[in-house]
Order: sequence, then structure tokens, then C-alpha cells
Amino acid sequence: MARAAALARHSEQPGGLTRQSLSPEYRAAAELVMGWMREAGMSARLDAIGNVAGRYEGDRPGLPCLMLGSHLDTVRDAGRYDGMLGVLSAIECVSALNASGRRLSFAIEVLGFTDEEGVRFGVTLLGSRALAGTLDPKMLEARDREGKPMAEAMREFGLDPAKVAEAARRKGDLLAYAELHIEQGPVLEAEGLPVGAVTAINGYTRMRVAIDGMAGHAGTVPMALRRDALAAASECVLAIERIAAADPALVATVGRLEALPGATNVIPGAARFTVDLRSADDERRARAAAAVEVEMRAICERRGVGFSHERTQEQAVTRCAPWLVERMARAIEAEGVRVKRLPSGAGHDGMALQGLADIAMLFVRCEKGISHNPVEAITAADAQTGARVLMRFIEEFGPKDRP
Amino acid sequence: MARAAALARHSEQPGGLTRQSLSPEYRAAAELVMGWMREAGMSARLDAIGNVAGRYEGDRPGLPCLMLGSHLDTVRDAGRYDGMLGVLSAIECVSALNASGRRLSFAIEVLGFTDEEGVRFGVTLLGSRALAGTLDPKMLEARDREGKPMAEAMREFGLDPAKVAEAARRKGDLLAYAELHIEQGPVLEAEGLPVGAVTAINGYTRMRVAIDGMAGHAGTVPMALRRDALAAASECVLAIERIAAADPALVATVGRLEALPGATNVIPGAARFTVDLRSADDERRARAAAAVEVEMRAICERRGVGFSHERTQEQAVTRCAPWLVERMARAIEAEGVRVKRLPSGAGHDGMALQGLADIAMLFVRCEKGISHNPVEAITAADAQTGARVLMRFIEEFGPKDRP
Repeated sequence: MARAAALARHSEQPGGLTRQSLSPEYRAAAELVMGWMREAGMSARLDAIGNVAGRYEGDRPGLPCLMLGSHLDTVRDAGRYDGMLGVLSAIECVSALNASGRRLSFAIEVLGFTDEEGVRFGVTLLGSRALAGTLDPKMLEARDREGKPMAEAMREFGLDPAKVAEAARRKGDLLAYAELHIEQGPVLEAEGLPVGAVTAINGYTRMRVAIDGMAGHAGTVPMALRRDALAAASECVLAIERIAAADPALVATVGRLEALPGATNVIPGAARFTVDLRSADDERRARAAAAVEVEMRAICERRGVGFSHERTQEQAVTRCAPWLVERMARAIEAEGVRVKRLPSGAGHDGMALQGLADIAMLFVRCEKGISHNPVEAITAADAQTGARVLMRFIEEFGPKDRP
Repeated sequence: MARAAALARHSEQPGGLTRQSLSPEYRAAAELVMGWMREAGMSARLDAIGNVAGRYEGDRPGLPCLMLGSHLDTVRDAGRYDGMLGVLSAIECVSALNASGRRLSFAIEVLGFTDEEGVRFGVTLLGSRALAGTLDPKMLEARDREGKPMAEAMREFGLDPAKVAEAARRKGDLLAYAELHIEQGPVLEAEGLPVGAVTAINGYTRMRVAIDGMAGHAGTVPMALRRDALAAASECVLAIERIAAADPALVATVGRLEALPGATNVIPGAARFTVDLRSADDERRARAAAAVEVEMRAICERRGVGFSHERTQEQAVTRCAPWLVERMARAIEAEGVRVKRLPSGAGHDGMALQGLADIAMLFVRCEKGISHNPVEAITAADAQTGARVLMRFIEEFGPKDRP
């Protein structure tokens, strides 16, 4: 808990927590984490994309690893456990092994991934994609809000964008990837359980929408002659909300919206917004995404404003490997906790790593299911239970068990 | 036309025109205008708030003046005639008087007002209010988007905020205020007329609205449990549009809207927006403003989000002085143009000056009524007709004619 508080102090935002990847604050957080890794008996380094990578060798050097971890970047005005708890818990486990001088029949790597949230460049899972070797090199051209391309941000951070491929691992290097993370939802709290075994990560569709109307003077253009891009966007926001609310297997969010030029006395000539649509059911998500598109197009046609959109990301449901879910369930049971299996509504780095190795996840209860919010909270007791379950999972894990 | 183009080059925005008050670009534009004033035989200075003030003495020094002019600041991504044309036309008129060595029985002052648009500090008519002696000293604490208080911006610009009262004129100093401005609406074009005499400036109500919901993770919070501030704001935008569309005497605009924290994968916890409501009828405007407030409150209550709002500005209809409207009409007629009398949908500096002197306005046709937009356009012929009418108005003006 103290380390989570210490990490939260590295923030771009006074009085709150915002830490984008490749920022000076990210650098400071990474240095802190690498220090803790080394204290826990690991070697630690920044890889070619800016992930923090700590390694604790097995009973001989160079063995394939069980990879643990989570991410070190945050959303804007974030909580301090989303991501960080998984990195800190994994370090605690390694520290316990190291303190008793134990080496296992596999190495352990603890990853602190960069830019899982996608706040800075608009695309998520940058660190884990690079590690999986699936980062689209075009991403290096993506720009942050200040217009700075990712390649330049990497150079400023001290990384060489030409070498980003060096972050990629080979398939045989990882035996599995297991991530502890706060639930970010209300299920465990409702069931009165400190932890739960994740079965799958919901799929999602993300869009970027551009509406182009006609800017004009707020005092002189009659309502009937207006082509107000913000009014059209507002109608789209409500249509998206309505479509998602009609199906309990769906959630949809317009998280970013900009009205341009953005002055009190100017009719907005343009609006830009994002759509984030998720479901545990790929087919229903696909249907809903199509319905959202049809509806937005119809709204814009009726209002005589230009509509264009792009599906920026499309991710099918990611299943946790059944053998690892069972291992996690056994570890939970061994801690005397009733086993709850549940899907994850949020995306996680495991989605990007799935091509590289089987994945598992352990959820820790959080207060009221609130996350991506400064009031995000967990109890120290739940954090301890989470770390203990992870420890058991590690201790019982064996490379020979892979099916 | 060449001077309008030259002024437009002093812009904060590459490839477009944005010039906020007290900026380096505003400074450069002011210097250019003062140079043209001096060429036209005027003394020229920046006053205590940053207005450009040029003076052409009458047949003896120190006489009360006919004040002409308009504003030199712009909205974001503006056209080049809104404001500037009135300043440039007035300078042309003085230049013609000066070229023929004519002095009148009154002085002429040409004002290039600062911050008519209110883009930088969120409140309009700063320059003309200061000149009228009605600038609320609290305005000096208002902050721009970068959080800089107006007092500091003034100091950076080389002005002393403690001396802002020195910009105020006394009642007897002004005989009248006459402003030439592009119409920014479609009436003159529809009537096939280059110019028109303004009868009144519509009144307006402006509000700042804050909606506070609950930020949360876009993937984990079920639709039914959300308190999405942007969805609530979107419903408000559509309600405002609906209320204004129901009465042809009303227009209403949400020109600025912000969703916070503003990330693709975070449910907006807060939304902030502005409302601008205008009418030629004060009573209908008051009724509509109340209806907007009732409706917004109901939307927010139903959605369980916090609602607060503030009426930031309230301006009754400003009537142009009938004797000056008739003078303007006669000058239009003398140019062989059919006289069209029309109200102004847009606000103008005359609103602030009304307490100081009677006001008059002359509108010049603009293409498709488009303004506050980079495609804003007028013809050179219309600009010439406008300047000629203004010249006749000046020539026929006499202090003894005041009723």
C-alpha cells in the first residue's frame, strides 16, 4: 500500500494522478519500480518500448519464464491501484522467494508495461504489443495531444524508435503470463469476496468519429439554417447510450468529445469523439457496432452534416487458458476463499500477450467497483490476499504442467 | 481589402486567423493599425485596456468627438472582416478628410477595441466596457485557458492593471458612436442590398453549466449504474436546440463543451458547457432562458448527476438612437441604395457604449451570412459602398443635431 502511494506521487497532475507513457513522471515511476525489483533480487531494465522488465532467474540461468505484471501508465485523474497493484504484488512475491533463497524450475519476469491505457497516443496496449511483436510500426507516427509523434516522444525518453522490434519476445521464452489486477467492477464486492479468477477479457470495438457541419455566428444564423456539429454529436451520444442500454451484455462509452472551434459565440462547425463498445459476446458486439454506425450516419444525414468514422480497434473476446484458470482457482481455494470465476469488462495487457503465451488473471476486489477515478480504493487485507494467492499460483506453477 | 488581408496575417493560428486580446499577435495588429491611423493624419495610442485609439481633431483642438470603430480581436478560426472592416473603413474616411485638409466642427476618434469577442477570458466587450467605465474590476481576475489572470496578461502586454480606469471616457466627450460592421447574417444578401441601417442589437443571455456525474471504467460499469456527465450534457444540448427552434425570434448555441477527464476508456465524470441565447424580444428571451434552466435541471435530476449553472451575462436589447438611424438611412439613400432597416443578431461594442452616447450601426452584406468562420467573405464593391455611406454620415453629422 505504501508503494502504491509512493508511485502515485509521480504524476503530471497536481493534486491527482495522471501519468502518461514516456513522460518524465513515467520515467521517475519506472526508476522507482526498478529499484524495488533490484531490492527483490531481480535484474531490472527498461526494454526498447519503455516497459520495465525485471527478471529473477530460476534454478539455472536462462530458463523460460513465468511472466507476471501489469501496467505503470494511468488514465487522466486516475486511481493508484489500476495497473500498479499487479506490478507491486508480483515484486512482493519475488521478494519473498528471494528472501528465503528459493529458486524455481523456471525464471520469473515481472513486467511494468507502458501505455496500456492508450491515453497519450489513442491506442492501448502499446507496451504489451511491442513485447508480443505485434506493434504496428505505423504507431510510431501516432501523435499525442501536443502533436508530438510517438517516435519523437521515444527519442526524448532516451529510446531509439528504430529498435522497437527488440522489445519482442519469442514464443518459447514465456511459459505463461499471469496478471493480478483490481476488478474495476462491482461483482466481487457484491459477492463478498476479496479475489476472483478471471475466465476471459471482454472484446471491444473502438471508433473515432468526425462530424463536420458549418461554423457560424451564434447570434445571426437562424436555427433552421444551422448545421451544428455538436448538436449532431449530442444526438449520436444519446443513440449510442440507447443501443448499449438495450442489451445487458453491452456497454458503450463516448469518453472524449471535442467541439470546434470551441467559443461561446460560435456555432460548432466540427465535432470529434470516440466510441468504446464492449461485450463478452463477440457477435452481439458486432451487431451493436453496426447499429451504432447506421444510427450515427442517419442522424448526420438528417441534419445535413458530414459524417466520417474509423474503427480504430477491434478486439475479440480473449479467453484465459482453462488450465491456468483452474490453477488460479486452486490457489484461491487454498487461501480459504470461495472461488468466483468472472469475466473482465476491462481490457488488459494479456489481450496482447495471448499470441505469445497462455494467460491467466486474478482479480482483487475494489470499493464499489470504481476505477479510472481518484476515489478508486482497495483494502490492505484484500491486497494481501491477492498477493498470497499469486504466491501460491507461482509456487504450484510448473512448466511441465502445460497441457 | 489589402489592409484586411494584412491584418489577418497577425494570427496565433498557422493557416487561419485567431487573434486573442493582449497576445503578441494582437500587439502586432495594433501597431499596424496605429501606423495607418498616423498616415491618415491622426494621433494614435493604446489606451489603458489595450484599445487602439486614433484621434483626428476638429476645427479646433479638444472638441467632443464622433466616435467610429469596431474591434481588432477575433474568434478562433475567424474571418478577416468581422470587426476589422469597421476600423479600416473609419480610417479610410478620416484619411479622405485629411487628404483634402478638411476639419469638421467635431473631432473624430477611431477605436480598435480589444476583446469584443470574449474568447480569451470568457466575457465579451472588455475594451468597450473599459471605455464606458463599466468594466467590473473583478474581470482582472478572470483567467484564460492557460490559467493566466487577465491582470497578468495586461502586465505582460505592457499595461498596468491598476490603471484600467484611465481608459474610461466622460459622457460629454462623445457626441455619438457609429460602427460599420459586416452583417454576419443572411438578410442583406436575400434583399440584394450592399448595406443596411441597424435598428437595434438583440439581447442575450449567457450561461456556464457544470454537470457532475461519476467517472468510471468504460468496460466495467453496467449502463444502468452509470452517471455519465457527457450523456446528460448531450441531452441538455438537444433540449436547448429544441427550445430555440420552437420560436423564430430565438437562437441558442452551445459553442463550448468539454467532457472530463476526456479519455476513450473513461466514462466522463464531468461536463462543462456554455449556453448563448439571443432574441430581439427581451421577454421571450427571458422565458426561453428559464425554460432551458428548468429542462436542464430535470434532465440532470432524472440521470442522478449534479447540475449547477451560472448566468454569466445578461444583456437587454440595445436600441440604436432613432435620430442616428435616420441619419444613416439618409446617407444610404444618398448613395442610391434602397434603405433596409434591420436588427443585429450579433452583439457589438455599441452595447457597452450605449450608456456613454447614442449609437448607430451600418451593416455591410457578407456572403451567405457566414461569419465566425474562415470562409467569411465580402466584395470590394460592398466595402466601398459601406465606406462611402459612412463618409456621408460623418459629413452630415453635426453636434448641434443631437435631439
